[in-house]
Amino acid sequence: MISIVILGTGNVAKHLYDAFSATNQVKILQVVGRSEDKLLVYSKHTEVCLDYGNIKEADVYLIAVSDDAVKEVSQKLIDKKGLVVHTSGSCALDILTPIQRKGVFYPLQSFTKNKKVDFKEIPICLEAAQQDDLFILEDLAHLISEKVFNISSEQRKTIHLAAVFVNNFTNHLYQIGNEICDDHNIPFELLHPLIMETAHKISVLNPHEAQTGPASRGDQITITNHLRLLENKTHKEIYSLLSNSIKKDYEQEL
Amino acid sequence: MISIVILGTGNVAKHLYDAFSATNQVKILQVVGRSEDKLLVYSKHTEVCLDYGNIKEADVYLIAVSDDAVKEVSQKLIDKKGLVVHTSGSCALDILTPIQRKGVFYPLQSFTKNKKVDFKEIPICLEAAQQDDLFILEDLAHLISEKVFNISSEQRKTIHLAAVFVNNFTNHLYQIGNEICDDHNIPFELLHPLIMETAHKISVLNPHEAQTGPASRGDQITITNHLRLLENKTHKEIYSLLSNSIKKDYEQEL
Repeated sequence: MISIVILGTGNVAKHLYDAFSATNQVKILQVVGRSEDKLLVYSKHTEVCLDYGNIKEADVYLIAVSDDAVKEVSQKLIDKKGLVVHTSGSCALDILTPIQRKGVFYPLQSFTKNKKVDFKEIPICLEAAQQDDLFILEDLAHLISEKVFNISSEQRKTIHLAAVFVNNFTNHLYQIGNEICDDHNIPFELLHPLIMETAHKISVLNPHEAQTGPASRGDQITITNHLRLLENKTHKEIYSLLSNSIKKDYEQEL
Repeated sequence: MISIVILGTGNVAKHLYDAFSATNQVKILQVVGRSEDKLLVYSKHTEVCLDYGNIKEADVYLIAVSDDAVKEVSQKLIDKKGLVVHTSGSCALDILTPIQRKGVFYPLQSFTKNKKVDFKEIPICLEAAQQDDLFILEDLAHLISEKVFNISSEQRKTIHLAAVFVNNFTNHLYQIGNEICDDHNIPFELLHPLIMETAHKISVLNPHEAQTGPASRGDQITITNHLRLLENKTHKEIYSLLSNSIKKDYEQEL
């Protein structure tokens, strides 16, 4: 049995709480947060605590707060004997210094309030300052996920950058598609199946093979028509830049 | 019973063939194509034909060929009494002129060879020059899909433009994410669950609400770090342009 304390009450904290609660090899001793309201949901089954000076002794402390607050929260754990880990994709391991038993437990997923996820499928990226602590994190991760990876702070930086492209920027393209539809009274839902299929396709083909559309086939007439149709200046710029980037990748093959 | 002839042997043709074959209210009289090899797969259950001068009489002719070839193929059907429709998102209805009984039967999806799709969920966008013909297309569409829409050529142009953003450009962002991972020996599969969740999320939240990441929270430090990390000049430009576009959308809210 591994005993843990969760620090934070946001989406990552809640999803980790739910995942660990569903196993019988983890004892969640305490959830620590600053907001009484947000702690309410945990208080039925677990001890909750508003006072960062009153944190229990545990095997592992999971810091699941916003990136800006990781350092500050970790300072409250300097005297603890347990292993202190953060769950952030963009913070390095070193942010937890001077704590000696430190690590990272980063679930590579975008969590939304009240939207369940299948934790088994979520990659968990682990790092620890000491080898023994890495074993503890591996045990912990394997309890909730089938996809556990050892990832250095350097690699995690790269993953976070790639994630900005495939998650944040992709969502912005959905937003532009939504605006274009709204401007012409077309329900955006019409594009949902296409969006799902585009995402799903890369599990069968790599993105280079999966590429379709006017730019990849060098169809300049359609590109010109589309640019004419676009009214928003920024949308025009994005259309041009992405089309040119695709053309560069494919013109050798045409 | 509606009798149809399918012209073309590409992905759209094959997926429509499979979908209509699974209903018992459609009789596929013939599949017409230029390649004997590609017709082979149909020939077990359906008459196939290489000769565009030898097309049977049918209620509906479905032209499922590449956009460039729609006009040319439609010329072979000028003397037919049946309804002639194309299946292209980017061609207007008028491309079928001088045919009088003409229409569009556009399944809004990106089809991949050998990858099954659930046709019930695919929006089918219909248009016809004559009202009676629209009813025929509605009957036909409802046999395979639960999502049937009347969409004018003008609206279809907009949908096609929006689809370039959410499908073609999104796939290109996946490609960039893939390259970034490859360059640092990180398996791109690590990002698949995130990609699926990003796509899935917009069925629960609209893309504006779903937006996360450094640009939407005005985190200039992370943006600067990411730009420094990117080596490819085009990737840098794309990162900057999309981040600035997101910032513009969110800076009022910060």
